[in-house]
Amino acid sequence: MLTTDPWEQDHLHEECGVIGVYGAEGAAALTALGLHALQHRGQEAAGITTFDGSDFHTHRAMGHVAGNFDSDEVIRQLKGKIAIGHNRYATTGETALRNVQPLYAELSSGGFAIAHNGNISNAVKLRRELVRRGSIFQSTSDTEVIIHLVATSTYRTLLDRFIDALKQVEGAYSLLCLTGEGMIACRDPLGVRPLVLGRLGDSYILASETVALDVVGATFLRAVEPGELIVITARGLRSLRPFGIVRPRPCIFEHVYFSRPDSVVDGSSVYQVRKRIGAELAREAPADVDMIVPVPDSGVPAAIGYAQESGLPFELGIIRSHYVGRTFIQPGDQIRNLGVKLKHNANRAMIDGKRIVLIDDSIVRGTTSLKIVQMMRDAGAAEVHMRIASPPTRHSCYYGVDTPARSKLLAANMDVERMREYIKVDSLAFVSTDGLYRAVGEEIRLDDAPQYCDACFTGDYPTRLTDQEDLEVPDQLSMLSERMI
Amino acid sequence: MLTTDPWEQDHLHEECGVIGVYGAEGAAALTALGLHALQHRGQEAAGITTFDGSDFHTHRAMGHVAGNFDSDEVIRQLKGKIAIGHNRYATTGETALRNVQPLYAELSSGGFAIAHNGNISNAVKLRRELVRRGSIFQSTSDTEVIIHLVATSTYRTLLDRFIDALKQVEGAYSLLCLTGEGMIACRDPLGVRPLVLGRLGDSYILASETVALDVVGATFLRAVEPGELIVITARGLRSLRPFGIVRPRPCIFEHVYFSRPDSVVDGSSVYQVRKRIGAELAREAPADVDMIVPVPDSGVPAAIGYAQESGLPFELGIIRSHYVGRTFIQPGDQIRNLGVKLKHNANRAMIDGKRIVLIDDSIVRGTTSLKIVQMMRDAGAAEVHMRIASPPTRHSCYYGVDTPARSKLLAANMDVERMREYIKVDSLAFVSTDGLYRAVGEEIRLDDAPQYCDACFTGDYPTRLTDQEDLEVPDQLSMLSERMI
Amino acid sequence: MLTTDPWEQDHLHEECGVIGVYGAEGAAALTALGLHALQHRGQEAAGITTFDGSDFHTHRAMGHVAGNFDSDEVIRQLKGKIAIGHNRYATTGETALRNVQPLYAELSSGGFAIAHNGNISNAVKLRRELVRRGSIFQSTSDTEVIIHLVATSTYRTLLDRFIDALKQVEGAYSLLCLTGEGMIACRDPLGVRPLVLGRLGDSYILASETVALDVVGATFLRAVEPGELIVITARGLRSLRPFGIVRPRPCIFEHVYFSRPDSVVDGSSVYQVRKRIGAELAREAPADVDMIVPVPDSGVPAAIGYAQESGLPFELGIIRSHYVGRTFIQPGDQIRNLGVKLKHNANRAMIDGKRIVLIDDSIVRGTTSLKIVQMMRDAGAAEVHMRIASPPTRHSCYYGVDTPARSKLLAANMDVERMREYIKVDSLAFVSTDGLYRAVGEEIRLDDAPQYCDACFTGDYPTRLTDQEDLEVPDQLSMLSERMI
Amino acid sequence: MLTTDPWEQDHLHEECGVIGVYGAEGAAALTALGLHALQHRGQEAAGITTFDGSDFHTHRAMGHVAGNFDSDEVIRQLKGKIAIGHNRYATTGETALRNVQPLYAELSSGGFAIAHNGNISNAVKLRRELVRRGSIFQSTSDTEVIIHLVATSTYRTLLDRFIDALKQVEGAYSLLCLTGEGMIACRDPLGVRPLVLGRLGDSYILASETVALDVVGATFLRAVEPGELIVITARGLRSLRPFGIVRPRPCIFEHVYFSRPDSVVDGSSVYQVRKRIGAELAREAPADVDMIVPVPDSGVPAAIGYAQESGLPFELGIIRSHYVGRTFIQPGDQIRNLGVKLKHNANRAMIDGKRIVLIDDSIVRGTTSLKIVQMMRDAGAAEVHMRIASPPTRHSCYYGVDTPARSKLLAANMDVERMREYIKVDSLAFVSTDGLYRAVGEEIRLDDAPQYCDACFTGDYPTRLTDQEDLEVPDQLSMLSERMI
Repeated sequence: MLTTDPWEQDHLHEECGVIGVYGAEGAAALTALGLHALQHRGQEAAGITTFDGSDFHTHRAMGHVAGNFDSDEVIRQLKGKIAIGHNRYATTGETALRNVQPLYAELSSGGFAIAHNGNISNAVKLRRELVRRGSIFQSTSDTEVIIHLVATSTYRTLLDRFIDALKQVEGAYSLLCLTGEGMIACRDPLGVRPLVLGRLGDSYILASETVALDVVGATFLRAVEPGELIVITARGLRSLRPFGIVRPRPCIFEHVYFSRPDSVVDGSSVYQVRKRIGAELAREAPADVDMIVPVPDSGVPAAIGYAQESGLPFELGIIRSHYVGRTFIQPGDQIRNLGVKLKHNANRAMIDGKRIVLIDDSIVRGTTSLKIVQMMRDAGAAEVHMRIASPPTRHSCYYGVDTPARSKLLAANMDVERMREYIKVDSLAFVSTDGLYRAVGEEIRLDDAPQYCDACFTGDYPTRLTDQEDLEVPDQLSMLSERMI
Repeated sequence: MLTTDPWEQDHLHEECGVIGVYGAEGAAALTALGLHALQHRGQEAAGITTFDGSDFHTHRAMGHVAGNFDSDEVIRQLKGKIAIGHNRYATTGETALRNVQPLYAELSSGGFAIAHNGNISNAVKLRRELVRRGSIFQSTSDTEVIIHLVATSTYRTLLDRFIDALKQVEGAYSLLCLTGEGMIACRDPLGVRPLVLGRLGDSYILASETVALDVVGATFLRAVEPGELIVITARGLRSLRPFGIVRPRPCIFEHVYFSRPDSVVDGSSVYQVRKRIGAELAREAPADVDMIVPVPDSGVPAAIGYAQESGLPFELGIIRSHYVGRTFIQPGDQIRNLGVKLKHNANRAMIDGKRIVLIDDSIVRGTTSLKIVQMMRDAGAAEVHMRIASPPTRHSCYYGVDTPARSKLLAANMDVERMREYIKVDSLAFVSTDGLYRAVGEEIRLDDAPQYCDACFTGDYPTRLTDQEDLEVPDQLSMLSERMI
Repeated sequence: MLTTDPWEQDHLHEECGVIGVYGAEGAAALTALGLHALQHRGQEAAGITTFDGSDFHTHRAMGHVAGNFDSDEVIRQLKGKIAIGHNRYATTGETALRNVQPLYAELSSGGFAIAHNGNISNAVKLRRELVRRGSIFQSTSDTEVIIHLVATSTYRTLLDRFIDALKQVEGAYSLLCLTGEGMIACRDPLGVRPLVLGRLGDSYILASETVALDVVGATFLRAVEPGELIVITARGLRSLRPFGIVRPRPCIFEHVYFSRPDSVVDGSSVYQVRKRIGAELAREAPADVDMIVPVPDSGVPAAIGYAQESGLPFELGIIRSHYVGRTFIQPGDQIRNLGVKLKHNANRAMIDGKRIVLIDDSIVRGTTSLKIVQMMRDAGAAEVHMRIASPPTRHSCYYGVDTPARSKLLAANMDVERMREYIKVDSLAFVSTDGLYRAVGEEIRLDDAPQYCDACFTGDYPTRLTDQEDLEVPDQLSMLSERMI
Repeated sequence: MLTTDPWEQDHLHEECGVIGVYGAEGAAALTALGLHALQHRGQEAAGITTFDGSDFHTHRAMGHVAGNFDSDEVIRQLKGKIAIGHNRYATTGETALRNVQPLYAELSSGGFAIAHNGNISNAVKLRRELVRRGSIFQSTSDTEVIIHLVATSTYRTLLDRFIDALKQVEGAYSLLCLTGEGMIACRDPLGVRPLVLGRLGDSYILASETVALDVVGATFLRAVEPGELIVITARGLRSLRPFGIVRPRPCIFEHVYFSRPDSVVDGSSVYQVRKRIGAELAREAPADVDMIVPVPDSGVPAAIGYAQESGLPFELGIIRSHYVGRTFIQPGDQIRNLGVKLKHNANRAMIDGKRIVLIDDSIVRGTTSLKIVQMMRDAGAAEVHMRIASPPTRHSCYYGVDTPARSKLLAANMDVERMREYIKVDSLAFVSTDGLYRAVGEEIRLDDAPQYCDACFTGDYPTRLTDQEDLEVPDQLSMLSERMI
């Protein structure tokens, strides 16, 4: 009777966050703090691997960083001044500990640990070939393919083997690796997933978002560039460009929802981008109402932007419980339908008799919107209008984001008017694609060479999707069928 | 190295929340949902007792409601259509399970369970006398005194014994009791702690706040009146007034901080009261700044009120992590001082170079204010002004609120100017006591007969404080010295 | 699908073991060791209470001593040089932690802890009266009656109150109590349950059996005498005789089965008594066989005695697994009947084609005997004879031993010949009552004034059985109906 | 302060036990029962892998079989009619779950699980070479080498690859493998470790000892022969001999200590062999004493043999606690030296004033003997003689037995007379090597072609010890250095 949060569930979810620390006392503790700040990018499991100059140490656990990585005992055992860490989001199926990263292997060159944010879109094909040649996989993770490609590469140095491996993979990856000699960071040529570089005293910090730098007091230096490979050893930091130059296409949804509002992603304040999206919406789709009500918490910045642009009052018409970080398993079948109120409650005294605009960041399945609109009507709202701070989500993501099947995406099955009827609002509008591009600082989307990956809105994927195309996929998946109890 | 949340820690804390359900299928499940909605009133432990017509069933657990009361197995065992539940806040010292409520006893009249929000201010004296006569206490809770007074009362009926017991206690109590014949609810003559009555189909629901009615879909009927005793049995609901008529003095701090903003307390919307406090502040203490920044989340409604009254923009200059419901134990000694950032982070892109007003609900020790002001300055704020949505907190509470010793209360030791210097702001102002009374709907505080208990601000306590006055208190406490490991 | 050990289950079970240490550094650790040595007397739960001169400390846990009382952390918190400990056996129903001893109460005289081996046979009647006068019980244990009798006694000193309380109870008790002034030990006037006194350096040790002295290296001084009350304080040890002189009747079954073979009970080596019972059996019921086979482990000493007396070889025809201390929950329904072999296995190479005598200590339900005989026949035994080292068990025990209902006792329902047919042996014999008395050193049982309590064989109970006689018992038990989940 | 049992510790320890079930409903439950019966062969961890016709299922856990494999839930998830199981003994260092067997891998041919009793004596060398070619190891177990040799073999069929792999390994192995097509069992050409074949209805059972057949009611068919490879598929059972014919040398210590007394090993009853060793000892080293006392439990059969041969009485002079299967962590530093008595206690009433012979199976470090002799003297023994049912243990084992370093082996450092002085007995004697061979049914040890592996007594190892000879071993081990917390 587990009910994962019915409102969070109705969002796209980032699958991972990574952080690496090079050259700091207490590297594991800093990494744990960074993972805590990146908890929103993956809440299923977390792991840290450190290197102390002679040995590697790993701790991985199901669940949140808090509770698993905040004991002196755990941190003390993670010795060393170099560390990488990883947060993982629960995708369907395999939630076993063996899939929790960092993954670790003993190669002929010594220990090698890897943490990956993204998704390899030809992993099944590569895996099949590696198994055929005698490789034995420990996990069902696409990331392990990279390790075996490194292990079996015929190049001489580890770095050459690593580049050789990456040249064979397709998809999205922001990678942090730990070896006996230092740390390697790499962002795929398109730069789909974010990765930033910071400095704390004499040490370097690499992380998915700037908030992980903030929490440890590090200074933000710059984003790792798409296609850039950074090697940090005792001899210092080197930047390489082993892949040809490609026009980058970072994920635009990081600005809409994935990243924290206090992060700076590829040069823009996420909070300000979201306020600008709200202002675009106010211009594109004004409404004659009494107040602007955000769907907490992700709709708040856009709602402030909409309210400031429109001059209408911003009010907390929906109160979010502080205690919903945890899943609440609803007791008793007969009251299952009460569950939606565990997380949010109408602020009835404000809503009763009023015309309102609800601001949310996106509509995925539409189930949440339906319930929240009903909650507003139950609280006495005279009119309920809805404005969405992203274009309609019509396509699946294959780059490390957990998207429902297309058949479940409301916008893949209905036009805006039918969506309006379905969620029962008086009016419904989404920001336009160009409005979104304006909010992130572009004049217009260049349709021939889009500046961002916006495939979830447009279906315009920046890479091949080999495993999707491969008709043998179902057979291959059966190879991964062992179930660890 | 446990670090309880350094910001929450710097608040006064409500010690308990209660809920009772009479006559509903799945009473335990409804009670669990209500306790979840009241989780902010007590997060240390929770318990539910039910009666199924022949047996009583109790489950009590340390920790949150979610995780302890949301499994089918637990709820199934809590059989019956009558239930009472209790959330408990961690006061100092005794956190053993035996102190978790509801407390239960087999009296000669049968089973008797009790859940209590408040504090008995002559409990030590009464306990000493009861032990002298042969009573054996199971807990160190003040609530158990009431049970022994009932058990040893010489009146004939349970109801007479219960009233006899309450006439001997002094202090604050909102009580819910379960017996083989039904439910008894009682609010002390001053009505210090809140208690409301609602209806769900044919069943009655009693709870500390209206949000517990909302979560189960119940209708709010009315507040239980100060001094009112309600008995609900198979023959229906009866209201009694066993105590003489006293002028009520409900706790004004419920409006400032304790209650959820979406609750209606003694007739007023908490959210709207808080906005009005913010507006009073804007009038009493205006500031020439660029934006209004709430200290999340408790400062948000007052900040919206201040912004609307002043016409200045409301901005999220501080971002609160979603993942701080859980305590994070900071790993590693050398980075302990980083811990404050686990919960909040400056939205640097908004703050840098700006003059801001921070709005918070209260200042207790001042430790939080100090850190948050520093965080704003580190983020580049040009000026930092602070406005507080309550008068200075100068006195301890003895009515069920966890207050630090007076020596730790900043306002008990400094005037406003010295407090301003201490927390290092450019200006500091508190709402006036009359401003606060205006916000809750009074014209002015009647100093001869104050409408509210505001002892934490004024030192004007509405009852005797027998145990405080009693010089033998230290000796008596040593009777409670057993430590259960 | 829990299968408690099917062979142990078919024994009578001692319900408790106690140990107390007065005046030793590390009293809790010594107590834990002693409880470990007394584990056979109670395996459901254990507890220790210590007093450190100012505070009492208690740790109680379900399960064995090992695993619950062997960590430095637990022992360190049990501070003080005075300690009492208790092992509890699982009787039907209530296995909640609140029934685990030592029980503790704050009396007007200060803290009071009690550990009890035995059973109060008028506990229900006393409890009913105490509740009527306002006492609130914490447990469903008969032992708590003693505490409330002490608490409500009108005598002045604690010792007088304690004696006053004991004069009201009927049944069997070996008690150890801890107070702020020292330790009190008491054995009931009949001396049904054992209690011994030992010395370790300057400290005193009291325990159910001498093996608890052996394990800590203490010297055995003497048995506590029936009706003796010992008080140990800073002023030394005092022996009192507060009850009139009664002819003692210690439990004879301690020699047959309950006590460890390496204990000395009331002056006799248990091992030697059991060998002598075997020798009596060899004389009373010889058999023409190839070898003597003990049912391990309790039948071993009698089998050695039988073999030595008869001149027949003693052989391990049944091998007991080392790993059956733990309950094994048999996996899979279809193989449930295989479960009996988890604990014992036939030593087929020895049994095949041989005529054997099996020696066991007692027959309770007969279920074990049936299975073990079948196991011997399956292993090829040519003839299987059985000899039992006690008279037929025909009556229930009300003095602290868990006996099945009389309807389940094989010997209460069948004569020896029908029992022989039921368990399918070629011959069956029990030692005679006089043979048993000879083995414990008496010439003959004095039927007018029996030297031992042998009620389980003879039905000759040494005390009144008030609660058994009381027709209202079922009603009273319903008062104890709360179920803690 | 963990004290593993100080007496068991002073034995050589078998490292593993295996069992496989082919073609039975509830295969996992039968396997769990068999592992329980083989618990003495490995107590650190256990695992079971099943195949249900399409998927493999694995459950592995640290700790005993009971408690980990006896829940319906666990067994239900281990679906299928084919299963293999493994018990593991704690060797030094790596006790992580990843080393717990069965090991499992997805090969290009499909799933492959393996359980191994024995030790590969060139594992380090093979592993180094495999890593060099790109293999990634999941464990530090020598067994994983076999899997990678299979995975990278260039033969076509799995069976040919498996044989190819085994031809490269040196050492001792009794293996059970599970594939999508059935089960493979194999015993190394020398037959060092035992393996037996049984039948239960239509299904086959393979196990380390016959007791695992007994517990599930299976019939013992025969021992798997040294060098035999058995394949069981839907087409039936096939026996292969892929290795050349070698003279077998099964481990003689299985008879002395490892195997359970109720097992039949390579045709002999272990119990009877041990009795015969005792009889040999009685003839080789008689003693003029009052009684024969076994060191329980492993010395019992030899003591019975010695007593019967000498005509002296067999007595339980040492009582073993039933509750020592569990480790007891001794509480409190000051009493650590009391710990030895947790497991055994002198039966003082028997020992006092008597001349005794103690019979034990072996002396490893001598620490136990020293303590037990002292315990006998403390109990008043007039003379203490010791007889050991094996020759002096002078050499380490490299075939799957955990032996202390040679420097710790008492017999590697002292002659018998000095050992006598060290353990402080009046006389000491070991059975002769020829006496031991006579007890197992040989006339004499053929020194040119010994019938058994007796290297621990003689130093005459039947295989090369490549890894021992390899000077680079220390460097290689550092490759395995990651520590999983």
